[in-house]
Amino acid sequence: VTVTRLRFQFDSLFIDHLASTDIFRQIENQLRSAICEGRLGIGERLPSTRSLAEELGVSRNTVVAAYNELTQEGFIVTTKGSGARVTNNYPRQKLSQEIPSRATENSTIELSYKTEKLLSIDLKNFLSESSPAKPFRAHAPAFKEFPDKIWSQLTARRLGQRDTFWKEVCPAQGYGPLRAVIADYLGASRGLSVDSDQIIITSGTQFSVLLIAKLLVNPGDIVCFEDPGYKPAARVFEMEGAKILDIPVDDKGLDVDQLCNRAERVKLVYVTPASHFPLGTTLPHDRREALLKWAERSGALILEDDYNGEYRYYGSPLATLYSMSKSEQVIYLGSFSKLLYPGLRLGFAVVPRKLVKPLATLRWFFDRHSPGLEQAVLADFINEGHFSRHLRRMRTLYALRQQALVEAAEDFLDGIMRVPPQEVGLHLVGWLNNGVSESDLLNAANSVGIELTPVSQFSTAALANSCVIIGYAPYTPKDIYQHIKALANAYHQRKFDPNNSVV
Amino acid sequence: VTVTRLRFQFDSLFIDHLASTDIFRQIENQLRSAICEGRLGIGERLPSTRSLAEELGVSRNTVVAAYNELTQEGFIVTTKGSGARVTNNYPRQKLSQEIPSRATENSTIELSYKTEKLLSIDLKNFLSESSPAKPFRAHAPAFKEFPDKIWSQLTARRLGQRDTFWKEVCPAQGYGPLRAVIADYLGASRGLSVDSDQIIITSGTQFSVLLIAKLLVNPGDIVCFEDPGYKPAARVFEMEGAKILDIPVDDKGLDVDQLCNRAERVKLVYVTPASHFPLGTTLPHDRREALLKWAERSGALILEDDYNGEYRYYGSPLATLYSMSKSEQVIYLGSFSKLLYPGLRLGFAVVPRKLVKPLATLRWFFDRHSPGLEQAVLADFINEGHFSRHLRRMRTLYALRQQALVEAAEDFLDGIMRVPPQEVGLHLVGWLNNGVSESDLLNAANSVGIELTPVSQFSTAALANSCVIIGYAPYTPKDIYQHIKALANAYHQRKFDPNNSVV
Repeated sequence: VTVTRLRFQFDSLFIDHLASTDIFRQIENQLRSAICEGRLGIGERLPSTRSLAEELGVSRNTVVAAYNELTQEGFIVTTKGSGARVTNNYPRQKLSQEIPSRATENSTIELSYKTEKLLSIDLKNFLSESSPAKPFRAHAPAFKEFPDKIWSQLTARRLGQRDTFWKEVCPAQGYGPLRAVIADYLGASRGLSVDSDQIIITSGTQFSVLLIAKLLVNPGDIVCFEDPGYKPAARVFEMEGAKILDIPVDDKGLDVDQLCNRAERVKLVYVTPASHFPLGTTLPHDRREALLKWAERSGALILEDDYNGEYRYYGSPLATLYSMSKSEQVIYLGSFSKLLYPGLRLGFAVVPRKLVKPLATLRWFFDRHSPGLEQAVLADFINEGHFSRHLRRMRTLYALRQQALVEAAEDFLDGIMRVPPQEVGLHLVGWLNNGVSESDLLNAANSVGIELTPVSQFSTAALANSCVIIGYAPYTPKDIYQHIKALANAYHQRKFDPNNSVV
Repeated sequence: VTVTRLRFQFDSLFIDHLASTDIFRQIENQLRSAICEGRLGIGERLPSTRSLAEELGVSRNTVVAAYNELTQEGFIVTTKGSGARVTNNYPRQKLSQEIPSRATENSTIELSYKTEKLLSIDLKNFLSESSPAKPFRAHAPAFKEFPDKIWSQLTARRLGQRDTFWKEVCPAQGYGPLRAVIADYLGASRGLSVDSDQIIITSGTQFSVLLIAKLLVNPGDIVCFEDPGYKPAARVFEMEGAKILDIPVDDKGLDVDQLCNRAERVKLVYVTPASHFPLGTTLPHDRREALLKWAERSGALILEDDYNGEYRYYGSPLATLYSMSKSEQVIYLGSFSKLLYPGLRLGFAVVPRKLVKPLATLRWFFDRHSPGLEQAVLADFINEGHFSRHLRRMRTLYALRQQALVEAAEDFLDGIMRVPPQEVGLHLVGWLNNGVSESDLLNAANSVGIELTPVSQFSTAALANSCVIIGYAPYTPKDIYQHIKALANAYHQRKFDPNNSVV
């Protein structure tokens, strides 16, 4: 976008008839500020004194007086015939000196404790997602493969319809037909038996977590997380006053025994059973059963983040905790950002019936509802089969890309790290060989424009083995090969370059 | 949308080779559940035993065993040649009996105190906005007048561009070019001198309030509100633990003297100076000066909700508190939902520089960012002049509609209420005559499908005079006339109908 500056609106000038300042001075001051601040541009034409006086409801003489002052100060020039305009040759320097001394930093503003606490954490890695994407950044889908044209046609169709409900206020719980097709999809593809009334549309998993934290957590309540695990969700619970209890993860996922042995009364446990975040393992059936039994016994709720559950390349899927649960102990979270494209901002939560109304009410007080147009277009996209088709296509594509990554790693990363294949997900984990330092590897990657995310940043306890997350979904096999080769070269070069011995 | 049920995905069946349950029983149980729960429909065809066995990676005999069991139980029938399908004549009643006894209400789920408190308030009126609109509902713009075609063209253009940045992760603070055009617009039309770096895009005023409450408020902090005032924002501050202090409003708006005389240390005050919510009055210049002086002295922050500030029909605008402030004591809130259409969900906050980064970080943890596509389309809409043009058109249109409402009230509502004109806004306030009961009037309105919002629901203190909010923006002068006439008739009929004497 080339920003075309909007014309200054002269009818936005403020006149206070009760103020002690003369009205001509009020006009003069505001015009001067507008010129100094660049809102009224160099060379720009001013309205005639007659028309401005009319617009502002003041006498013409008042405007004449204001223009005269500004002319004398050199801010405007008046030419016979073409009227007044902002001077062309007024010294820039002088302009900037005359900008009023407003906007001094107000050091008295104090942030809330919870915000201070959040900011005290090293956020660099959490926030890096919003910088331009680099190869091997994790958790990005192949959004270049998203069927733009179909999405565009569906959007155009909605925008062209007589029924413009999308312009109106939408229910906080979400657009009904979208909830219906999601319920249907979950039934057909993820084995969930869900009523559309139990679904609440959100702007993604992070927002679902915020809503649920607010809905359920009192200060001091204990919320359990996988360690390593999805820390950004833990931060949200913490902001609501929750005490986070980290439960270790082994090579099969959450160590449910350790959870069961805790003496504390747990309010909620956050799990990623389909594909552990960030290690990618699938929680085995027996651990799922044990987790559910424990939850029923202890009265804890389970927050099941089914993140990447759709992207299984081989092996059988396992029943979701939601489907296995006999009581309404499980809240199920899904998101379309990783399935379609990250800029979309639509996700959902499946909740026990009792929680639907409170959750929709909270949503209303937080931000009303998700945009109507996107909800309608997504409903059409799913309903007309494009969604299932896209997922099928992506599954094939991602399987090939994962294979390329595994092969490239075998060819080039020998002696640096092992990158075993995985059944599910959009990334693999690279396990560093003994003697390979994480920082050496990250520096090498960085030197060739590659982003590897260390698992350690999602871990509270020290890891027995250093490992990094390697996202492959958006990259072609050819790109994957090239980048892995470049990474290996950079690592070996730095390793044997005496100038880089200490990094 | 007619929801077409998605085909059941047979490859979503779960097989657990380690479970004690036989694999054929696992398949049988899941298919039976799918049939009972209607996910696998009456008459629907099942895959051949050979192909299902292949898909699931089990022996063909296993699938045959599962199909045999289901056939014996009468859930499926197998015909020579056309294979197995869900039976057509299985008694419906029996089906529902066989639905497993899952999904019992879990009465142990406890909501957080803050949620319980929020739900304990009578929310009916706050939430009514999400029910279908009726005439005279307040705060709705004339969204039928929104230039759909232009919006549609701009959307199609963005969707067709090679640059599909809108699919990617967007900065939490908002799309840069959108922030730039908003800064420009505020400079040209609202007299604000703002750097685009000080703007953060949100999903509307309610979400801006949530962010700011979280950013600044500690439990026990005092936040002042106009009374009557915008209670939904007060509720959000309350959820963060703020103590709400209600400051009376008189016929000129917030009684700033009463605020200045309070002994408490105030963290923040929420004001609607352009057009008081809900009374519609404009805060005079001297009160604005007094408010700013008090804020500077006391260190309090001002949250200026410039709601409806764009819709001024006569009289001069007043300088915003933001423009008048010499220190960075004012946070300015704007929203596009009331200017364009409510389903859009885009707004913004202008904040002191110091708060930008913390606020963007909070946003990232709450819900990442606003959808990229809508942000891009809105940037184009403003940048190419459509926004200013739309506002100008709406100002003329709304002025005529307001006049129609004033005239209709003079013609028909004599003896019921006075509806004086106002300089700013999308609604008028109807002041009930002495002896007219609010509930009589509301019942009369309700009986003819008209929605009047009593100001009392936004007030903590008892009001000296009963009054109601009458939104006029979305209705034509003809409709306004008819509805006001119908309201008057209904009121008089009920009034003199002995059956309605006690309502």
